Amino acid sequence: MFIKNTWYVAAWDHEVTTDGLFARTIIGVPILMYRTADGKLVAMADRCCHRGAPLSVGRREGDCVRCMYHGLKFDAAGQCIEAPAQTRIPPQAKVRTYPVVEQHRWIWIWMGDPAKADPTLIPKTPWLDHPDWRGLDGYIHYDVNYLLICDNLLDFSHLPFVHPTTLGGSADYAEHPPKVERLEDGVRITRWALNTEPPPFVKAVKDWTGKVDRWNIYNFTIPAILLMDSGNAPAGTGAPEGRRVDAVEFRGCQAITPETENSTHYFFSHPHNFSIDEPAVTKSIHQNIVTAFEEDRAIITAQHRNLSLDPEFKMTPFAMDAALSQFRWVVARRLEQEAAETAAATSGEAAQLITVQRQPA
Amino acid sequence: MFIKNTWYVAAWDHEVTTDGLFARTIIGVPILMYRTADGKLVAMADRCCHRGAPLSVGRREGDCVRCMYHGLKFDAAGQCIEAPAQTRIPPQAKVRTYPVVEQHRWIWIWMGDPAKADPTLIPKTPWLDHPDWRGLDGYIHYDVNYLLICDNLLDFSHLPFVHPTTLGGSADYAEHPPKVERLEDGVRITRWALNTEPPPFVKAVKDWTGKVDRWNIYNFTIPAILLMDSGNAPAGTGAPEGRRVDAVEFRGCQAITPETENSTHYFFSHPHNFSIDEPAVTKSIHQNIVTAFEEDRAIITAQHRNLSLDPEFKMTPFAMDAALSQFRWVVARRLEQEAAETAAATSGEAAQLITVQRQPA
Amino acid sequence: MFIKNTWYVAAWDHEVTTDGLFARTIIGVPILMYRTADGKLVAMADRCCHRGAPLSVGRREGDCVRCMYHGLKFDAAGQCIEAPAQTRIPPQAKVRTYPVVEQHRWIWIWMGDPAKADPTLIPKTPWLDHPDWRGLDGYIHYDVNYLLICDNLLDFSHLPFVHPTTLGGSADYAEHPPKVERLEDGVRITRWALNTEPPPFVKAVKDWTGKVDRWNIYNFTIPAILLMDSGNAPAGTGAPEGRRVDAVEFRGCQAITPETENSTHYFFSHPHNFSIDEPAVTKSIHQNIVTAFEEDRAIITAQHRNLSLDPEFKMTPFAMDAALSQFRWVVARRLEQEAAETAAATSGEAAQLITVQRQPA
Repeated sequence: MFIKNTWYVAAWDHEVTTDGLFARTIIGVPILMYRTADGKLVAMADRCCHRGAPLSVGRREGDCVRCMYHGLKFDAAGQCIEAPAQTRIPPQAKVRTYPVVEQHRWIWIWMGDPAKADPTLIPKTPWLDHPDWRGLDGYIHYDVNYLLICDNLLDFSHLPFVHPTTLGGSADYAEHPPKVERLEDGVRITRWALNTEPPPFVKAVKDWTGKVDRWNIYNFTIPAILLMDSGNAPAGTGAPEGRRVDAVEFRGCQAITPETENSTHYFFSHPHNFSIDEPAVTKSIHQNIVTAFEEDRAIITAQHRNLSLDPEFKMTPFAMDAALSQFRWVVARRLEQEAAETAAATSGEAAQLITVQRQPA
Repeated sequence: MFIKNTWYVAAWDHEVTTDGLFARTIIGVPILMYRTADGKLVAMADRCCHRGAPLSVGRREGDCVRCMYHGLKFDAAGQCIEAPAQTRIPPQAKVRTYPVVEQHRWIWIWMGDPAKADPTLIPKTPWLDHPDWRGLDGYIHYDVNYLLICDNLLDFSHLPFVHPTTLGGSADYAEHPPKVERLEDGVRITRWALNTEPPPFVKAVKDWTGKVDRWNIYNFTIPAILLMDSGNAPAGTGAPEGRRVDAVEFRGCQAITPETENSTHYFFSHPHNFSIDEPAVTKSIHQNIVTAFEEDRAIITAQHRNLSLDPEFKMTPFAMDAALSQFRWVVARRLEQEAAETAAATSGEAAQLITVQRQPA
Repeated sequence: MFIKNTWYVAAWDHEVTTDGLFARTIIGVPILMYRTADGKLVAMADRCCHRGAPLSVGRREGDCVRCMYHGLKFDAAGQCIEAPAQTRIPPQAKVRTYPVVEQHRWIWIWMGDPAKADPTLIPKTPWLDHPDWRGLDGYIHYDVNYLLICDNLLDFSHLPFVHPTTLGGSADYAEHPPKVERLEDGVRITRWALNTEPPPFVKAVKDWTGKVDRWNIYNFTIPAILLMDSGNAPAGTGAPEGRRVDAVEFRGCQAITPETENSTHYFFSHPHNFSIDEPAVTKSIHQNIVTAFEEDRAIITAQHRNLSLDPEFKMTPFAMDAALSQFRWVVARRLEQEAAETAAATSGEAAQLITVQRQPA
């Protein structure tokens, strides 16, 4: 069960091309994406309306796609416009299209009611294409439900345990409880570790010998978007008060998109604003992030296997769960709300149908 | 759910030998086949009646088979005739046998009521062993329900799209709508493409420069047997009127046999009546057919995956679906009929049981 | 569904070490085992009470284990004693521990009510560590339900059929029906084959030219423990009357422990009391046993696949099934008894709860 009326990251911009056909399953729905000759993005169900074959193994014909099973041709609006040996195409012969928006290097898709697809709701990720920031594109595939990954990202006290040689650093990091604030569509987390060791991935690119003040400040919002201001500055130089002197700063952008109930896409980048003309620095940071995220994947996949053995296992709450409990509550509330809207719409249609049927009387 | 009272192709004749034990699962039932010393075919459940071990990993002992788990010996009628340390074998200790008939190189099995197993119902495939025709034996295994393969074979408008370099040829082929006639147990399809390109697999063996008249005329009958008269003749030489001058002719024989709900056996050959003493021609034709059928398997397997993602997907009907809709209707009718017969038999037995129980009163 | 109030073999003694963390799933429950610094065995749920991550991928810290997801630390009693950024640990933050006993080289675990875990109920296997006996440690993993393996071991008439070149020997072995006696928690089986061929695995280490008297006398008890006195003596030298002259003797110890409903651990050794200072003899015997048990696994796995195809298959009983029928009856009786105790306990708790709730009135 997934939230529908929200923007999901569907792809990195470079994945969807003008001459190709790109397939990705989003919240259980196979999606075909491509760009028309003038660069406009198209997203439609990757399933021919005729017999269900994937259009993504079909053929581009200009801005159209032809299903290479029986030759039906669809335009960029998903309408079937050609079928062999048939001059009149029924208007219902179409595949569903989805609102799709490209913004700051990510392609966002709206899987719910198109009338509600307001592009201004898309979170801003300017650091992905801003000249003052540098990062590399990351993607990892998980074979677990996306909420287990959200749980992970909503509690950074796992850093020193899961990531001792990459993101973690000294164990005291977990001892600094974060401030958790409720947002309309998620939570805001602020964690400061003062006078601590810089994490290994920072040490790898910064010749620091002393302690640092470290911060991770991020919003985690529906459906599962993490946007973070994080960094380190030499300890005691005033970072908590807003003076970032000789600091290293990052703007982590992460998007978790369910593929199916038990598999997930994970898009990420970790842009930095220092040494931006040194590709080796960018590469080192990125490689540490990738290594760390594979560490996450190992423990979360092991957790998933354990949970699968006993669906009735009850988790024991700890103080560190504040943010993830709140986020799960937000998700549940949104799912209930969408279910209620669907029920109301259905009963509305039923009422309308009764009216229509009574008209002759 | 499969039709039971019908003949399924179980094997090519050479697969079942006099000294071996051949195992194949047919409509969900594991079957053991072998030949007795005098060449008679035997088909029985490949499952020892004792603890369920497969007899096919047992041992031939003359015309009998011994289960190599606990040593039970069964004769060719499926009767247990020997058990270690036991002199009296209970008469119910037997495995079910199945009517099995060899005809024109295919071995046919009847999975339903043996009393109804009329060998004259078996479709004739004389081209598989007639001296005037040459072909090679084909077999492909699918991991999809057999009806998706039937759908494919009931609509050749897919030829130019799925098989552009083998069976397909020019796109206009799909523009010639076939005539579809209802048969007692299936459909008869007649498609003529006049003044068209010869298909690539014919070009590969026939030095033609001009256009041809092309025909595909076939019966597709229960359970899933395709028998086809197909060919090409130089355009305008009278083929549609029955004059086959300098023609190439084929008699495609194809049998689709469900293995389980989600896997299928596919037996085929494509005999030709020209250049029959040139093995290279026979081999070229066969290899093109195999390549084409692997193309079918790729698209059908992709379709199957797509359908699995959403069991509620509704297919949109097109004109080209006429034959497959009729065939699916025939299958549904036969399944209903068999279900009704089973229900009647059960209620008859129940009535008889009541009578028996009342006798003492 | 598994019996809970019984001792299961969980591991060979050497598998669980003082510095490591050993994971094994027993009757569907992931278990972590280790030894404290003073050698005491610890067994607890291999699942952090917080978010369900496996503790076995955590870190030993003295006699404690730290979950390497969020850093919770558990002592050897399963109690959480440390959590980052949290001074007061809730007392319910603990993982379940299980009674565990080491005896004669096997580590036994009690998965049921700890109050009933009486170590004197553990079957004795002195031959595994007695100086007069020699054997090697065996372990095989099965992907079938454990009862199919019990069935196999409860009827040795399969020996000449499944194991012709290892344990089996001449076919007449199966013709000697065993005596089957009911025990409180299982069955006792006594089988004598007089004046028979020695089995191949004995021939490999004993230079015998004549016939032997062969015996297999074993208890097979809940949950699935086989302890056997077996051997061969030159035919007619009085073995059946108790005179074991120039005999080879074995004390087979085998324990079948369910991993999940469809997978099983199989622990075994086959100690002998002759040529105990010739490692080549010990190795030869062990290798033959391993080869034979792989033969069992092949046929039982094939049987399992066949049974999976048709869950309604009814087995036909034979005389040789006496022991396995009795054992399955014992298992069923114990499962019923445990279900009844659980129901009674639940209804008792409910009654108590009503009393408590009424107290204020």
